[in-house]
Amino acid sequence: MTTGEIDESFGGVTPDAARRLLLGAVRAFAERGFHATTTRDIAGRAGMSPAALYIHYKTKEELLFHISRVGHERSVAVLEESVAGTAGAADSAERLARAVRAFVRWHAEHHTTARVVQYELAALGEEHYAQIVVLRRRSEEILRGVLEEGVAAGEFDISDIRGTALAVMSLCIDVARWFSPEGRRTPEEIGELYADLALRMAGHRTAGLPA
Amino acid sequence: MTTGEIDESFGGVTPDAARRLLLGAVRAFAERGFHATTTRDIAGRAGMSPAALYIHYKTKEELLFHISRVGHERSVAVLEESVAGTAGAADSAERLARAVRAFVRWHAEHHTTARVVQYELAALGEEHYAQIVVLRRRSEEILRGVLEEGVAAGEFDISDIRGTALAVMSLCIDVARWFSPEGRRTPEEIGELYADLALRMAGHRTAGLPA
Repeated sequence: MTTGEIDESFGGVTPDAARRLLLGAVRAFAERGFHATTTRDIAGRAGMSPAALYIHYKTKEELLFHISRVGHERSVAVLEESVAGTAGAADSAERLARAVRAFVRWHAEHHTTARVVQYELAALGEEHYAQIVVLRRRSEEILRGVLEEGVAAGEFDISDIRGTALAVMSLCIDVARWFSPEGRRTPEEIGELYADLALRMAGHRTAGLPA
Repeated sequence: MTTGEIDESFGGVTPDAARRLLLGAVRAFAERGFHATTTRDIAGRAGMSPAALYIHYKTKEELLFHISRVGHERSVAVLEESVAGTAGAADSAERLARAVRAFVRWHAEHHTTARVVQYELAALGEEHYAQIVVLRRRSEEILRGVLEEGVAAGEFDISDIRGTALAVMSLCIDVARWFSPEGRRTPEEIGELYADLALRMAGHRTAGLPA
């Protein structure tokens, strides 16, 4: 895991002590898992005492919730920005390609945060989980919307729009599991390949056919 | 998680005590993560003493390695069986559809085992990890082989065979992350949808085009 990718995810969190605690928690959860991490571990990584941690976060679960919320908000924002202002201005194929490129890049570049966010969901409390589900639905809706518009415009040929939207999301999210900065492909290269694969999944007329 | 899916994965392990320990370890790792689980937890779940555990497995990492080995061997076997004897007897599209249906079903039906196997890889020792990598390569090779044959036969149109094979695998594996037996789709239904999506990703001539 790289320090840069985590720093960038939580750059907007203030005060500085709260931000350092989230960074420490992401690293600890990624290395050892939520249940094996103690608040003492997290405070130590942030150069603070356990007592100082409790000023900012009452429980370890609250730290996980903030990580999960920031992670989901960022990935939703990246998806929204990728298609913002393009309705009418770009065809559905271009919108889908932009969304997939952006979502894949986020999951590659922030793979440590994304893994914690995806794999520790079950450790969230009921109320916090419900808030995260709202953000997850938002990502699904954005992608499903692009597919629906493309089908309505006759650009895409899809029999199961909901299932295809979930599959495209799943393909992008799983990049976080296997991506390595030492691997043979950059986040941009994976984004390009996956944009083409998503167009094929959507039955885009020209995708996957000889010119 | 269901008891049945885990029992079935490790049904062939003998003696009975070793099998019960693997079942207990999968459940504990899935619930709490590898690092938060103690050998005492695992022995307790198997109705045994920690001392009795050490007769079968010297360390917690050895238990994880056996789980990982059995999980990978089963999923590779399922892939191999799905295409066995079909070279020449079935076209590449049918072979790819069979492979994807089988691989998806395995990851849905054995989602608890698959999650432990996929998310705890980093906890394996170096030598054990190297053995697992050999099995992972085998899955990739089977899928890549089907795609290569299809391209050679003119059935598929793929510019990046390696990347596409990895993407199809990734799509199937991620089913284990989100699948729930209470969800709206059965493993068979997901397998059917994903077989169609994989054919589209492979640029199969008739996939995704109007009849």
